[in-house]
Amino acid sequence: MAIDKTRIRRLPEHAVDDRGQIDAILDEGFVCHVAYLMDDRPVVIPTLYARDGERVLLHGSTASGLMMAAKRGSNLSIAVTLVDGLVVARSGFESSANYRSVVIHGTGTLLEGAEHEKALDVLVEALIPGRLADIRRPTSIEMRKTAVIAVGLEEVSAKIHAGPPEDAESDLGTGVWAGVIPLELTAGAPQPAPDLEPGVEMPDYLTTYRRS
Amino acid sequence: MAIDKTRIRRLPEHAVDDRGQIDAILDEGFVCHVAYLMDDRPVVIPTLYARDGERVLLHGSTASGLMMAAKRGSNLSIAVTLVDGLVVARSGFESSANYRSVVIHGTGTLLEGAEHEKALDVLVEALIPGRLADIRRPTSIEMRKTAVIAVGLEEVSAKIHAGPPEDAESDLGTGVWAGVIPLELTAGAPQPAPDLEPGVEMPDYLTTYRRS
Repeated sequence: MAIDKTRIRRLPEHAVDDRGQIDAILDEGFVCHVAYLMDDRPVVIPTLYARDGERVLLHGSTASGLMMAAKRGSNLSIAVTLVDGLVVARSGFESSANYRSVVIHGTGTLLEGAEHEKALDVLVEALIPGRLADIRRPTSIEMRKTAVIAVGLEEVSAKIHAGPPEDAESDLGTGVWAGVIPLELTAGAPQPAPDLEPGVEMPDYLTTYRRS
Repeated sequence: MAIDKTRIRRLPEHAVDDRGQIDAILDEGFVCHVAYLMDDRPVVIPTLYARDGERVLLHGSTASGLMMAAKRGSNLSIAVTLVDGLVVARSGFESSANYRSVVIHGTGTLLEGAEHEKALDVLVEALIPGRLADIRRPTSIEMRKTAVIAVGLEEVSAKIHAGPPEDAESDLGTGVWAGVIPLELTAGAPQPAPDLEPGVEMPDYLTTYRRS
């Protein structure tokens, strides 16, 4: 097959199929957008997730639209997107965003019993490493209210768009500024809850918390 | 209908139907996740968007899956999510994220002619206010390659989850730290393109660029 160089230049989104890179994106993110079918229409919602080896775990209220759809066997599409910057090109056409994204397709398996409880632990620890040791075990009522599904990473792809603008030759030297505005999700200093009793120190895993 | 107080406490996501608040969320964001149907399966992808009054504009390669689906009249579901923090509660069950999100349902109208060109301008200016005056007009080839669809804000809802953890009474006073880690998408100093000619100064709208 001939390589369409125009297309490659015009769409500088680099498809990535390296599992190490895919896992790195999934491990840096924590919010995904998941699409499911409801009455034959697509519905997309944001939700927290965690990678657990060869699958991702999503949790939600047992009666939520997503969990009901997953139980019905709905196909799911899950996107994780990390926004790294704005590409300020000399034309609108070449202007875009730098990002790393993963899209997963599959169906969800509802986890039960010990697997369900273990999955909730994985979700807690993925969000804030170190947290699990400090909190109590979930109650059986909490577990009944919170469903967890697993979606395998069999059908998964990634795209990475990085670097400076790729302006057309004819736009160079025209006196128009071009470059990249870096963007990053940054964590501020943790704010204690108003009902935190005096004398409880912030754990080390929170004082050093970074998202990436 | 009786109010289920347990449910309200357990799901402190506040549904918002105030158009001012919905517009504010849409105007602060710039990346959306849009779900469409392909072979009766949902597909979700990240893409840039802009609000234009009573509608949102999405652009993409004319031959992309999203644009082809929109042309076929596929139902679309569009989510914009701003992540504001991690809620570090005393239990895993109450731990969550603070966020503001909007979900839009509808079909896409492909814009043509002058409306198409105007929509591309709106997209440029929404991403970087002030930029439009500095860049050349799109060429007819660029316009043919970049489709824009408009999706009306008729079927739109928002959720705002904010504030400290809402721990169960029985978890208070247990010596476990609780609070919120604020998260924010922050812009760094713009980085000039390697091919930027000497003497081109960064415009003011970039030196003062903020995402929110």
